[in-house]
Amino acid sequence: MTAALGGKPAILVMYSNFLPSGAHLERLARLADGFQIFVATSEHEAVAYATKAEIILGHRYLRQALPHAKNLRWVQSTAAGVDHLASPELLSIAPILTRCPIFSDVIAQHAYALAWSVIRRIPEAVAAQARGEWARPFDMLPPPKVAMVLGMGQIGLALARLLKANGIRVIGAGRVCKPEMNEVCDEVLTGAAWREHLHRADLCFLALPLTQGTKGLFDDAAIRALPSHAVLVNIGRGATLDTKALALHLRKGLLGGAALDVLDEIPQPADDLWSTPRLLITPKVSAYHPEMQRKMEHFIEEQVARYLRGEHLAHQVDHAVLRESLVDY
Amino acid sequence: MTAALGGKPAILVMYSNFLPSGAHLERLARLADGFQIFVATSEHEAVAYATKAEIILGHRYLRQALPHAKNLRWVQSTAAGVDHLASPELLSIAPILTRCPIFSDVIAQHAYALAWSVIRRIPEAVAAQARGEWARPFDMLPPPKVAMVLGMGQIGLALARLLKANGIRVIGAGRVCKPEMNEVCDEVLTGAAWREHLHRADLCFLALPLTQGTKGLFDDAAIRALPSHAVLVNIGRGATLDTKALALHLRKGLLGGAALDVLDEIPQPADDLWSTPRLLITPKVSAYHPEMQRKMEHFIEEQVARYLRGEHLAHQVDHAVLRESLVDY
Repeated sequence: MTAALGGKPAILVMYSNFLPSGAHLERLARLADGFQIFVATSEHEAVAYATKAEIILGHRYLRQALPHAKNLRWVQSTAAGVDHLASPELLSIAPILTRCPIFSDVIAQHAYALAWSVIRRIPEAVAAQARGEWARPFDMLPPPKVAMVLGMGQIGLALARLLKANGIRVIGAGRVCKPEMNEVCDEVLTGAAWREHLHRADLCFLALPLTQGTKGLFDDAAIRALPSHAVLVNIGRGATLDTKALALHLRKGLLGGAALDVLDEIPQPADDLWSTPRLLITPKVSAYHPEMQRKMEHFIEEQVARYLRGEHLAHQVDHAVLRESLVDY
Repeated sequence: MTAALGGKPAILVMYSNFLPSGAHLERLARLADGFQIFVATSEHEAVAYATKAEIILGHRYLRQALPHAKNLRWVQSTAAGVDHLASPELLSIAPILTRCPIFSDVIAQHAYALAWSVIRRIPEAVAAQARGEWARPFDMLPPPKVAMVLGMGQIGLALARLLKANGIRVIGAGRVCKPEMNEVCDEVLTGAAWREHLHRADLCFLALPLTQGTKGLFDDAAIRALPSHAVLVNIGRGATLDTKALALHLRKGLLGGAALDVLDEIPQPADDLWSTPRLLITPKVSAYHPEMQRKMEHFIEEQVARYLRGEHLAHQVDHAVLRESLVDY
């Protein structure tokens, strides 16, 4: 989109997973009639529009845009967790940063579906079907009775609720204890206490943000402490898990199975990780559903309206917490 | 197993999915010390041992054994539904026939896992993973709000309970109304009323026995009446569904997806059915789980103990109902 960069402040739109709908852009234009609205579909455009941007909606080219964003006051991310956006530049500009954690229930359902797919050996069935084979049995895993959920953000809490509704005992582990944890978990652990309970977990879900404290947290020792029939699911951040150690355990048949919706680095097509036995990989689609774009655009329009009325924005990120996420710097 | 066919009555053991464990055979021998115990691992052995058999445990070679089973008084099937065992010969000998419907909860969980695998496009993810591709998105289906369950036997009821626990509205359809249906379903339909409600079903589960009344029941018109995002799951009997019509609808993109754990006939490896888009096939493994053999052997030992004490056996099949299952004769 080319644009005359006039005197008006700008809203820069750059969503990660979809192009903004025409109706959404029209509604934004009506809401924010003192603003120009730009849509960046490339790094080049993001940089070009950044100078005027008072508001950035989406974080697609945020890192590239930031050095030029002298007028930036607010960034609305489309992600539930924004740890990956932390950079010295962002912390120095210090705009309001807001998250979009509105799909926790869908993400929890995806995580739970991943666990059951592994338990019921759906990937092995799909492989047999692709060969035109009626192959059985597939060495199913026992129905889970106890689940551990690491990370008690919105997603962890939604997962705990879902597991409990299905009659599974929930051990919830968070850095500190929040009142909601007691409501949705059968047992609450804080600090490093979770390590002592891994041997009880038929299912183990990682729903952790990436911070200096969680990088590589679920390490070789943690994987080793799980029962041999356990299923490990990561829907948080790829780097919170030692994926290489996990793959090794799976190759040795020391774990029931695992499912990863997140990877720290996406491996090359020929990489061994893809063919790890009893490992199911989905490409970070846990929030995807047919209503995703409509609901996200609606949420963002509500946020823009709040901003323009001078109201407090929903789901603001504390800059002190963000600073902790500076893992790679 | 060779054996001297002496004067004692016999128990003939021939399970479909596993060989009886040594411990099980020992317990049976202790329980039934007036009986010889034979294990048939081939049609030939089944026929040879059939003459002496007062009791047949399992139905693996039942059809072949029956013409020789002059002393048969009881058949304990390892299946939940025994419609497929109905034959003029069985009805003429008229032994007590008992079912083994002890895995309804596991089967319901498998059916529910199949539905979510289709909703979350797990088979497409497995295919992309096999190519070493981080491919997205996969056109996920909407989270289901309403499910129809056709067939209100133990499996249908277990499914209804599971769906309800997950906040899904359940329309249960049975031939006639049983009190349990009202307890576990939000709406109960009888007779052919279900056809008028198919358009409301985000999920549709077939948990039907095969009888003259259910053969081909879920036909082209029924498939056509489902919403275009619906997921159809068959865990009952393959022949209750027009699988060819289903495949055609899926190829035309007229249905959200489908999963079949049962097929009327297993197609050749080169058959088109295997590669039908958005069709997930599992090879009749819905009851499989690590405890299956142990629990089944335990149940059968309890049944044998009842028989020997002259008590009523659990899960007896009414011969009049069985007669209705004579579909293929």
